[in-house]
Amino acid sequence: MSVRVTFEPAGKKVETSPNFIIEIAREANVALRSDCGGKGVCGKCRVVIVDARGEISEINEVERKHLTPEEIEAGYRLACQTKILSGRATVFIPPESRMEARKVAEIAVEEEVELNPAIRKIHLKLPEPSLEDTRPDFERLKDSLGDVEMPLNLLKKLPVLLRDANWDITAVLWNKKLVGVESGNTSSRVFGLAIDIGSSKIICHLVDLVNGKTVARGYAENPQVAYGEDVVSRITYASKKEENLKKLQEIVVDAINGIIDEICKEADVRYDEIYEAVVVGNSVMHHLFFGIYPKFISVSPFTPAVRQGISYPAREIGLKINGDGHVTSLPLIAGFVGADATSNLVITKIHEKDEICMVIDIGTNTEIILGNKSRLLACSAPSGPAFEGAHISHGMKAVSGAIEKVRIVDDEVIYETIDNLKPKGICGSGMIDLVAELYKAGIINRNGKFVKETKRIVKDGVPKFVVAWADETETGKEITVTEKDINELLMAKGAIRSGWMILVERLGIEANEISKVYLAGSFGRHINIENAKTIGLLPDIPNDRIVFAGDTAVGGAKMALKSVEEREKIEEVVGKIEYVELSADKNFYRTFIRAIPMG
Amino acid sequence: MSVRVTFEPAGKKVETSPNFIIEIAREANVALRSDCGGKGVCGKCRVVIVDARGEISEINEVERKHLTPEEIEAGYRLACQTKILSGRATVFIPPESRMEARKVAEIAVEEEVELNPAIRKIHLKLPEPSLEDTRPDFERLKDSLGDVEMPLNLLKKLPVLLRDANWDITAVLWNKKLVGVESGNTSSRVFGLAIDIGSSKIICHLVDLVNGKTVARGYAENPQVAYGEDVVSRITYASKKEENLKKLQEIVVDAINGIIDEICKEADVRYDEIYEAVVVGNSVMHHLFFGIYPKFISVSPFTPAVRQGISYPAREIGLKINGDGHVTSLPLIAGFVGADATSNLVITKIHEKDEICMVIDIGTNTEIILGNKSRLLACSAPSGPAFEGAHISHGMKAVSGAIEKVRIVDDEVIYETIDNLKPKGICGSGMIDLVAELYKAGIINRNGKFVKETKRIVKDGVPKFVVAWADETETGKEITVTEKDINELLMAKGAIRSGWMILVERLGIEANEISKVYLAGSFGRHINIENAKTIGLLPDIPNDRIVFAGDTAVGGAKMALKSVEEREKIEEVVGKIEYVELSADKNFYRTFIRAIPMG
Repeated sequence: MSVRVTFEPAGKKVETSPNFIIEIAREANVALRSDCGGKGVCGKCRVVIVDARGEISEINEVERKHLTPEEIEAGYRLACQTKILSGRATVFIPPESRMEARKVAEIAVEEEVELNPAIRKIHLKLPEPSLEDTRPDFERLKDSLGDVEMPLNLLKKLPVLLRDANWDITAVLWNKKLVGVESGNTSSRVFGLAIDIGSSKIICHLVDLVNGKTVARGYAENPQVAYGEDVVSRITYASKKEENLKKLQEIVVDAINGIIDEICKEADVRYDEIYEAVVVGNSVMHHLFFGIYPKFISVSPFTPAVRQGISYPAREIGLKINGDGHVTSLPLIAGFVGADATSNLVITKIHEKDEICMVIDIGTNTEIILGNKSRLLACSAPSGPAFEGAHISHGMKAVSGAIEKVRIVDDEVIYETIDNLKPKGICGSGMIDLVAELYKAGIINRNGKFVKETKRIVKDGVPKFVVAWADETETGKEITVTEKDINELLMAKGAIRSGWMILVERLGIEANEISKVYLAGSFGRHINIENAKTIGLLPDIPNDRIVFAGDTAVGGAKMALKSVEEREKIEEVVGKIEYVELSADKNFYRTFIRAIPMG
Repeated sequence: MSVRVTFEPAGKKVETSPNFIIEIAREANVALRSDCGGKGVCGKCRVVIVDARGEISEINEVERKHLTPEEIEAGYRLACQTKILSGRATVFIPPESRMEARKVAEIAVEEEVELNPAIRKIHLKLPEPSLEDTRPDFERLKDSLGDVEMPLNLLKKLPVLLRDANWDITAVLWNKKLVGVESGNTSSRVFGLAIDIGSSKIICHLVDLVNGKTVARGYAENPQVAYGEDVVSRITYASKKEENLKKLQEIVVDAINGIIDEICKEADVRYDEIYEAVVVGNSVMHHLFFGIYPKFISVSPFTPAVRQGISYPAREIGLKINGDGHVTSLPLIAGFVGADATSNLVITKIHEKDEICMVIDIGTNTEIILGNKSRLLACSAPSGPAFEGAHISHGMKAVSGAIEKVRIVDDEVIYETIDNLKPKGICGSGMIDLVAELYKAGIINRNGKFVKETKRIVKDGVPKFVVAWADETETGKEITVTEKDINELLMAKGAIRSGWMILVERLGIEANEISKVYLAGSFGRHINIENAKTIGLLPDIPNDRIVFAGDTAVGGAKMALKSVEEREKIEEVVGKIEYVELSADKNFYRTFIRAIPMG
């Protein structure tokens, strides 16, 4: 017996077996928030059943915890708790539960680098075999190319390729491996792909390796989001059984393949002209992409399966570039300091500098690297998802309609939203502004407690500060913050602050001796530096020493794509980074507690 | 509409679509000779339709050419020309058309060699990760093993393997590549497989690489025989379309996998404990096994796709040893001087000797290597299938019932058959004896023409010499030879003789200066040296300088399996061999003509 569900406002219809709404939405490819991966913890997968002709599961305790009686009355349910048991239903996904494309930093920072890619093309006119020259095909090639390896797949068809091309060929080399034999002279067409697999967004840049120019860019949601907003939920799912891991690998590879189709079309490049893809991402994204069992990244002592850069034939991964081409990852630094952090290093080049610099990439885990060319320390601060809107009453990601900037002038709130829409909630940068401004206005104290009466503080139940009145918002409901929300933000900040404080201490310097702080990652681009310093997220150094590094991840991948020297250099540097496991530091807890308050 | 066919004497029944008998026999796995691969050329796929209730295709011109009117009357047909169109039929396969296991040389020659296999096992007790030691899994392994590579497939499950084994593991290395991680100490169990893929027979030896002993041996027919007895028919089939090549690869791999199952059971070894297989075979068997497009081996100038030894993961070939284990071939010497000839070299070690030696491996193509440690020449003489019984009226392979030894005393014939059965035909060694004895008895002259009347010469139609009278034979029909048959043999001999004559001349020596002639391959073991010299197949040197090298092929594979030094040495030597393409030698034709007669 099947059920029929229509998702609104998208209007997607699906017929399937009785199941939880969240599962049916996944099946129908309807984007629905599920920050905790469907465990009933986050309460973000709110939907409204607008029409039901059939049986639906009874409302349960989990739902009662996350929904007000008025909301329940209005038909609100949690998609992860509600089962469509029979008949048909229309499910409306309210704005706050929609997953929308995050803003992508337009400019991926990239340094100029001398072109010397791993992929090289060599045009050859081979002498035809004759009774006087009976050299076998591969040896004939090697006499021109030197000692190269060859994949079996290519060897199988080599005799045909050479003869169809009438011995006028272009050999494609990946390092010392022959990965392609093309007909005629194709040496003007050499392409590579840089891929940044973020937990929520995937970015691909197609690079012309003859001139180093980026010829097309593409983006997609990471479809793994449907299996958990946070990486830990995905690890849990992937570790449960082999098929799950395979599934998560397949969907991310499929999503990338979709981008490849698009950008190849745009740039008029055949996918099999791409012979290398360099991939970056955090350790979990890295493991899931390669299909490596990820469980132990999330279990103390948080060890990944491999740290060094790895490279395997695209065929083994299913990536839609030339099957004999290679997929290469930048090295990871540690379990929670992934190849994306390596990109930060590649781009900011703090490993080449004399002065002490710091790179900080704020996210659920905040990667921090501190040092200079003689010594580098790295750690991952467990900042949690507060900056992404989780655990904050009206928190949301930095997507359309999120309040991203806040000022408080004479106890009045002036806010800006992304895309200038009516506000739906408040994102991480908005929260930093809000807390800093509340503090500066004397409305909260350094511990985040309300200490001043204003007309914006509403006191039915827990006291709340109203950021936007009901008539201003998209949802028609007030957007507020509670002391608990402020505390969540201060805790997240405390984790990050204690991370760099411990690194600073280990390096034997003072925080204000840091010459430069690079803010990497898309989050860094949107925060107000002054306010970040006010709440103590960043060290108190002059603003001109704080630099937006931008979205370095794909840029780092491109550097490696363009230059084998860069790749080798970074492999060497990363091998020497001292990773500091904060949870093993005896001062961590004390430092953390001291790092929570402001001022 | 389907047809039903019963094959006798095996009693195998099959129901299938209307088709040629030869195709139906293949489908039913009924062994049926098909020396030309079903092209209607050899006339060896003779069958008798003993019962037919339905429609059968009309007898055609090809059949009339190969069958006598009496045979046609008796129900004889050619299986490759006759289609069962409807209903049911019983098809009898007469003894001469049955494919039976060839005798396998019992003793594969093998030299003692110091054990140093490519596969090594190293037992390790790794320190468990802790917050103080967060090295990733692979780097933890590498700190004990040195710089090794790792297949993705193994990396994917490495975290689980290490933890399930409680960090007490045995690392399996193939050269510098980690190919296995086993739980506990398994270093006493290291196995390798030596495989000789003959065009008609496959031989596998399972070797314990801890002590170098062969622990089990297995044999099977090469199922590709059903697609042509000779390699050229198989090349033709395989080159027609991609699926055909895939098919020929699959069936030979399947046959080997069947042997592996048997010998693993016999020796109590798990197939995944075998981490390397070394394979030898002629160039066509080699290409078909690896799935390499073989066409150009059979087209002038006869170039294979690759000459050097190649090695690929077993997974890529489908061989049932450990999937991450490696399948390695010995190097080929040239298109028609394959890895089996390389084995001859490995075993006879003529490349290490001061004196000039020759190895000769007689077959459809006869591989000849001549020289010593300072210079080696090789050629392939196109001897054709006469020694395997083809193109000889009553020729057959060296299987049960074949006349393998002949003496003529007072114009009377004394013969011996394989397994002492009633004769069915005459095999190659029998033909050599017969021709030499006829010549010595003055019954034929040096050109193979009958020059003396005896009661054994029958003259209805072309004159024939009766080797066995009708009442002595299995078939109840006379076994005879004609001048044409004798000429076929002398031509085959001429090809071989001119091969070594040209090498001898190139090396600037006289034939009698050859210190030792090694007869390699199974055919060599069964010939009468004196008679071989009489007909001129071998140089006229004292018998004690002619040595049976035996079936060296699998022995050579075992040498390489046991020692990487041997493997490297042979790779180097083979790289230096001067291959002489006979068809490009301006003296070949003249030499060949002079090499045909005896005396």
